[in-house]
Amino acid sequence: MPGLRYGGDYNPEQWPEEVWHEDVRLMREAGVNLVTIGVFSWSRLQPSPGAYDFAWLDRVLDLLHSHDIQVNLATPTASPPPWFGQAHPDSLTVTADGVRLTHGSRDTYCVSAPPYRRAARELAAALADRYGEHPALALWHVHNEYGTWCHCDHVAAAFRNWLRERHGSLAALNEAWTTAFWSQHYSDWAQITPPRKTQYLPNPAQALDFRRFLSDEMLACYREQRDVLRPTGVPVTTNFVFGGWVPVDHWRWAEEVDLVAIDDYPSGNPEEESAFAADLARSWARGRDWLLMEQAAGVRYSGGRMIPKPAGAMARHSMQHIARGSRGVMFFQWRASRGGAEQWHHGMVPHAGPDSRTFREISSFGRALAGMPAHPPGIDATVAILWDYEAWWALQSPGLPSPDLDYLAPIRQAHRTLWHRGITPDFAHPSHDISRYEMVLVPSLYLMSEESAANLTGFVRNGGTVVVSYFSGLVDEHCRVHLGGHPGCLRDLLGVSVDEFHPLTEPVALSAGNAEPTHPDLTSGITLTGTIWSENIRLTSADAVATYPGGTPAITRNRVGTGTAWYLSTRLDDDGYAALLTTAGLSPAATPPGVEIVRHRDGTVYAINHTADTILGETPEPLPPGGFAVFKDPCR
Amino acid sequence: MPGLRYGGDYNPEQWPEEVWHEDVRLMREAGVNLVTIGVFSWSRLQPSPGAYDFAWLDRVLDLLHSHDIQVNLATPTASPPPWFGQAHPDSLTVTADGVRLTHGSRDTYCVSAPPYRRAARELAAALADRYGEHPALALWHVHNEYGTWCHCDHVAAAFRNWLRERHGSLAALNEAWTTAFWSQHYSDWAQITPPRKTQYLPNPAQALDFRRFLSDEMLACYREQRDVLRPTGVPVTTNFVFGGWVPVDHWRWAEEVDLVAIDDYPSGNPEEESAFAADLARSWARGRDWLLMEQAAGVRYSGGRMIPKPAGAMARHSMQHIARGSRGVMFFQWRASRGGAEQWHHGMVPHAGPDSRTFREISSFGRALAGMPAHPPGIDATVAILWDYEAWWALQSPGLPSPDLDYLAPIRQAHRTLWHRGITPDFAHPSHDISRYEMVLVPSLYLMSEESAANLTGFVRNGGTVVVSYFSGLVDEHCRVHLGGHPGCLRDLLGVSVDEFHPLTEPVALSAGNAEPTHPDLTSGITLTGTIWSENIRLTSADAVATYPGGTPAITRNRVGTGTAWYLSTRLDDDGYAALLTTAGLSPAATPPGVEIVRHRDGTVYAINHTADTILGETPEPLPPGGFAVFKDPCR
Amino acid sequence: MPGLRYGGDYNPEQWPEEVWHEDVRLMREAGVNLVTIGVFSWSRLQPSPGAYDFAWLDRVLDLLHSHDIQVNLATPTASPPPWFGQAHPDSLTVTADGVRLTHGSRDTYCVSAPPYRRAARELAAALADRYGEHPALALWHVHNEYGTWCHCDHVAAAFRNWLRERHGSLAALNEAWTTAFWSQHYSDWAQITPPRKTQYLPNPAQALDFRRFLSDEMLACYREQRDVLRPTGVPVTTNFVFGGWVPVDHWRWAEEVDLVAIDDYPSGNPEEESAFAADLARSWARGRDWLLMEQAAGVRYSGGRMIPKPAGAMARHSMQHIARGSRGVMFFQWRASRGGAEQWHHGMVPHAGPDSRTFREISSFGRALAGMPAHPPGIDATVAILWDYEAWWALQSPGLPSPDLDYLAPIRQAHRTLWHRGITPDFAHPSHDISRYEMVLVPSLYLMSEESAANLTGFVRNGGTVVVSYFSGLVDEHCRVHLGGHPGCLRDLLGVSVDEFHPLTEPVALSAGNAEPTHPDLTSGITLTGTIWSENIRLTSADAVATYPGGTPAITRNRVGTGTAWYLSTRLDDDGYAALLTTAGLSPAATPPGVEIVRHRDGTVYAINHTADTILGETPEPLPPGGFAVFKDPCR
Repeated sequence: MPGLRYGGDYNPEQWPEEVWHEDVRLMREAGVNLVTIGVFSWSRLQPSPGAYDFAWLDRVLDLLHSHDIQVNLATPTASPPPWFGQAHPDSLTVTADGVRLTHGSRDTYCVSAPPYRRAARELAAALADRYGEHPALALWHVHNEYGTWCHCDHVAAAFRNWLRERHGSLAALNEAWTTAFWSQHYSDWAQITPPRKTQYLPNPAQALDFRRFLSDEMLACYREQRDVLRPTGVPVTTNFVFGGWVPVDHWRWAEEVDLVAIDDYPSGNPEEESAFAADLARSWARGRDWLLMEQAAGVRYSGGRMIPKPAGAMARHSMQHIARGSRGVMFFQWRASRGGAEQWHHGMVPHAGPDSRTFREISSFGRALAGMPAHPPGIDATVAILWDYEAWWALQSPGLPSPDLDYLAPIRQAHRTLWHRGITPDFAHPSHDISRYEMVLVPSLYLMSEESAANLTGFVRNGGTVVVSYFSGLVDEHCRVHLGGHPGCLRDLLGVSVDEFHPLTEPVALSAGNAEPTHPDLTSGITLTGTIWSENIRLTSADAVATYPGGTPAITRNRVGTGTAWYLSTRLDDDGYAALLTTAGLSPAATPPGVEIVRHRDGTVYAINHTADTILGETPEPLPPGGFAVFKDPCR
Repeated sequence: MPGLRYGGDYNPEQWPEEVWHEDVRLMREAGVNLVTIGVFSWSRLQPSPGAYDFAWLDRVLDLLHSHDIQVNLATPTASPPPWFGQAHPDSLTVTADGVRLTHGSRDTYCVSAPPYRRAARELAAALADRYGEHPALALWHVHNEYGTWCHCDHVAAAFRNWLRERHGSLAALNEAWTTAFWSQHYSDWAQITPPRKTQYLPNPAQALDFRRFLSDEMLACYREQRDVLRPTGVPVTTNFVFGGWVPVDHWRWAEEVDLVAIDDYPSGNPEEESAFAADLARSWARGRDWLLMEQAAGVRYSGGRMIPKPAGAMARHSMQHIARGSRGVMFFQWRASRGGAEQWHHGMVPHAGPDSRTFREISSFGRALAGMPAHPPGIDATVAILWDYEAWWALQSPGLPSPDLDYLAPIRQAHRTLWHRGITPDFAHPSHDISRYEMVLVPSLYLMSEESAANLTGFVRNGGTVVVSYFSGLVDEHCRVHLGGHPGCLRDLLGVSVDEFHPLTEPVALSAGNAEPTHPDLTSGITLTGTIWSENIRLTSADAVATYPGGTPAITRNRVGTGTAWYLSTRLDDDGYAALLTTAGLSPAATPPGVEIVRHRDGTVYAINHTADTILGETPEPLPPGGFAVFKDPCR
Repeated sequence: MPGLRYGGDYNPEQWPEEVWHEDVRLMREAGVNLVTIGVFSWSRLQPSPGAYDFAWLDRVLDLLHSHDIQVNLATPTASPPPWFGQAHPDSLTVTADGVRLTHGSRDTYCVSAPPYRRAARELAAALADRYGEHPALALWHVHNEYGTWCHCDHVAAAFRNWLRERHGSLAALNEAWTTAFWSQHYSDWAQITPPRKTQYLPNPAQALDFRRFLSDEMLACYREQRDVLRPTGVPVTTNFVFGGWVPVDHWRWAEEVDLVAIDDYPSGNPEEESAFAADLARSWARGRDWLLMEQAAGVRYSGGRMIPKPAGAMARHSMQHIARGSRGVMFFQWRASRGGAEQWHHGMVPHAGPDSRTFREISSFGRALAGMPAHPPGIDATVAILWDYEAWWALQSPGLPSPDLDYLAPIRQAHRTLWHRGITPDFAHPSHDISRYEMVLVPSLYLMSEESAANLTGFVRNGGTVVVSYFSGLVDEHCRVHLGGHPGCLRDLLGVSVDEFHPLTEPVALSAGNAEPTHPDLTSGITLTGTIWSENIRLTSADAVATYPGGTPAITRNRVGTGTAWYLSTRLDDDGYAALLTTAGLSPAATPPGVEIVRHRDGTVYAINHTADTILGETPEPLPPGGFAVFKDPCR
């Protein structure tokens, strides 16, 4: 695709046809060159069983084409119409409690229901057939934000088939799921169900496998549609949604899309979160194209409130994505809906119309984007953060030793610390080749296979530095504890052995240990405070860099081969964690606070000024408050 | 009905017959002249299918009559007996999750179930037949606190019929409900269901229509019983219960009862809330009779606690109702129940018996009430507050821009502010003739039709003053946004246009704007602080009376015709809101704080002293602490 | 059984057979002499319908026996395997909402389902048959922690039969349940159901009878298994679990077991709670044997966190049980599970293995225990606390006057106050013979029959002292209020009459009343503060010892016969409650704070030092910090 993409979800079916003409005029004014059509149009495309109505969509595509606006055409399978549930009640979602849901919202479908699967393929085929060669068509957008759970009997049957494939035999499944505990031994495949409502705590291995299954089952759905669309020669994608409840392993999904597409709705600090989301997407893409497919034009959703973005923020946050390789900037949605459950969600054209701050900023940024380079070659990261959905899901198991344990918090802290230091890291799966990095951070990677541990050990042995945080490496891929002392599969690498965890309810101050750190940061000045968690560490080959009151090690360092493995057995605040990384050898920040610099390997530099001051010296021209610049580094 | 009514719910079926004789003796002692009988007596009147037992009720009515106590005879349809659910399982309530409820509490019925409807008519007919000419009979009390939701298939069918009636065609319904959003287009009436459990946010227009339907469906139930009872010539009513969850539009219901009857259970400040409840009831009645049908004798329910009313409070609060035209004072219930789920609810005769503070106060107040005038002609209010159930229900939609938005809080603040100023306002529906008022307050009237906006505009054009608060006038009767800038249908009247909302998480201080207010209150002394909400106002014809930090208007004033329209785009505290009303021309308080004066158009004055001081000068005689007086204003 | 028992739950089915040999070696090292086998082994013992596999269990028992370790053999009926639910879906638990649960956890069975009952008896018979004469067998452990609720139709039928038995006639049931309230009259037994989901508040008498029924129904289950096992001549027990949600009346159950066995998992202050749990168990046993069957080896579960026990704490807490007569110390479980929902629960052998602090403490305490006397004769308590499950259950009724009312808090306060004073009290059922005590405490005994009140009155009349706390004696055994003034059935004994309750939202300071207390404590120095509750007390024959602001009595004293009845109408803090007990005649503490002394009637003394200081003078030898001692009192 040429140039940077700019646009958003466009739902002309919600508006009278006369509005469409204002729409394309305003799109041109705003520099929009790509719109996503049809995401929720099933009931319009097929108003009743068997009856397709494409006429309106023909007119929409022609109108857009005549205004040089390209189309990201969606298959509307994320929201079956009421008639579909009426005709196929077995396609409606069933909750873990056994309640069959009713249409009346969106996403009320079962990915394993044969009628749904069939209808989805037919819809994709009908769209491919009619629009596959339409000159406006630039991209296929399969479905929307895959992530719907179902617990019905269709799902149960599909889950059993998936388990047969995964485990091979019932005996292997019983062993993997530790069914000897609580008398859960399965003597027949037919006894296995999704984790439906049960009396007390569910089996964590069953829960984890069910998430893996859902990811694969939804991926199969996606693939079926993709394979129908692919003969058109137009690239195919689907938009990824992010959240702990989403049973989708984006590492695996990224391999199946022609373009990694993400939706991004920061709820906390938007600068930190935009960088995080963009680095994740870039990492999932592994060098291939990616695109910011949805963000809100003018507001941030936080604590149930829709908070307007400050002036210029939309442009700055969008540039964070562009700087990290996004092929464009897309929004949900073009025109704020007049009615419906999301009528108060934002639009590029708000309810007030184009005479609004939001539309003025949208248009202004659209013009700025038009002049930017579309394809810098990529970033050579020197630091990686290990990121694994399965570990995240496992960390949502019942019965963990503390409710304060969390995957996302330490992951975000690791990324945030690097971002504040001007470092653009990769995320990497624990099984990936990590030999190209200088340092690898491993925040709370609860689930970790022996193979991943070996991967990490090889990296250190060859000179790499790893910083592992608490509650890592404890269970294997079936959620079974690595025995013999924690953190099981990382014990040798870290040179420590832990026999007891001690969740903290009050912060504790750490003291310098018996080892002289490689760098004075941890011993000079800064006070380290541990919160929520601590461990009773016995040193086997590591040194203690910091200790708990009483003298047991809190932070350790182990030399392995030519590298170093650090272990942090508690949660530090941001300053403490940053000091640890400095001590472990991370280079200091080279830019002023609030100035974001992203460098590509060809010397293309993106600079974004998140401060209220003009910044001199970082860019060829002074960088005004809230401004951004793209230039070639003269030193490259 | 002659004289003021005094009494309460009387449930003799819970007590051995010997207690009845003590009851009537104590009732006489307490001045009781009306009791509500039979509210929960279905299982006693009809202990098994087909078998009526009226003998006990005959004796009760005769006993009461022989003691000159009249009867408000209830149809017992609010609590079908266990045998009824056993015989007609389809009459049991179904939740939105599809759970069919079991008897064992109360209110477990479906208003759309044919067997229930039939049984309700038969019960009413049996009672009319037997007691229609009983000399003790003074009033019919249909059912109890209508307000039960059901989601069963009977309800679904009735809902569809109601929708057909309302919308005429499926096309009109699809348009009204914005079903183009999220692919919810209905191609067959049979696809429409109540808003049952669905995957994600429900359709707000469907949810709103379902509440309207429930209100009408329950009203149809009521009417069926009323029409059976009416030939007896005795007035018919039902008691209204108040709450955001109650799907009953009391404006419409008030037209169908011979006497508006309310239940009142204040949970916060009881003086403010009693005045609020009584003014609502008086306004619903629109000049016809109304009655306080239930209140607690000795306690207030607050935060799950039953807090005793202070000495004299029951009398003062009762007088607030009498002062506003209540035809009497009734309680739930005569004798506190010995067992059952509400055994700890209060009674006029508590568990301790008549030798108790509560019964002494009940008797003392009964004597006082006997000497009061029953029929002052009514109050000529100069101020009205717009009040609309549909707006309240719409403000409970999912996905609003802030969880802090609420209908009741600003409505109560408006009423409270007037009450503290000694003003007794009317509540008015937005469609009512409001030309008789000087000022109309419009707190957060989210849903507002163009017709209502025109009504308000006409009022201002002819010299009236309106004070509109934030989040008003945004959506039409189908919950669809009025486009083109907020607050859509009030934009011209207010002379402002808003393109963005800004929910506040911290308070902000307002400054004086560029307009000189008509009255110095807003600029002299008082600091205005906005909370929870703000808006980005562009002035089209209004002046800014106060501004947010940065200078955008926060409070505006627009001259239209010979009147003025004020707009408050944030929430103020009580002092700030009071200052705004003063600035807008509301007259200052004429009575000392805590002294409540209610004046009728014939010069009858009710004075209630809520303070601990003797008040001189407001009443012909000094008004003792906690005392009250009724007198004719010598100046009239 | 000779000597003190030491061991825990042992689940060899979770481990490869080679681990078993390490297990018995480590057990010997730790002094383990009894292990509980098979609790969750149904699916291993009977992997599919009809197929028993005892071979592994034969080997386990033989291996244990060959190492002189005895066996507490469990029937595995607490966790039916998946195949069982598949074969008998009607044996799966149904919630109050009508959801039939799925296997996948534990405890998913219905105690009233005939197939489950049959299978449970057959399992017990098969185990009795095979192992009844095994030389390792020392104890039968039926099931695990009975306490599972079900609401299915089997339960409904059984409940109706139980109700017939209890009430004799429908008329009696209607009277007992006050079904005249809210029209709940039953005209046919078939109309009665468990308290399933209903519209609003359930009937408290129905809810209470359902808990009684569940207790009896589960007891019948237990008895069926016991009666199958008894012919083996080996004692039979089941382990009691403690909690407000557990519908088990341990007073009645204790009569049916050969050994009272409890599970104890303190979540707050473990020293106070261990003493509490042990005194309860000792009291339930009423002089017969009892045993601490489960506790956690190394951690405490608090607020969802697993907090390690400090060094030595496990031994100290265990000694609190031994001191009160426990026949040993058992843990859940021997070896921490590798997988499953409780994989992070603790074990005597943690995941780290025997080279761990926990296993070292386990071994050290095992050695200490071996030298201790097994059978001191018992404790002659002078103080009793009334304790009644039915009162606890009734205090969980809906619609109480305040959500702050609670049974456990005042019960624990009473016990804690005695414990801090070095007094080891009995718990007694209100119907028990209490004549042997000097003082009886009655904390918030909401439900109390006339017979129990008479029992208490007789005790006082004959010279005893009772201290009754607020919200006692209010309802009868059917949850019906004792009329005529509160606290109904205790009014005469206490010499007071209450017409109103006043829940407190703020603390109030009490003042000295008009009576000179028997002891100066309440009037000298200490400030008494009442919280959460107060009552409007009228003195009939009592004196006011302390009063509320305004002068109404707060604490009263009534002389009856040769004894005294005190009434406390509010909640005091611990110091205040202790002062009240002192005033009422309780002797002062004879030991230093933190030193626990338990004396048996034969002069055997247990001393436990919970402090960090060496204690001199209490024991023959100085008692080191955290130490304990057992010796004969030379003065006896």
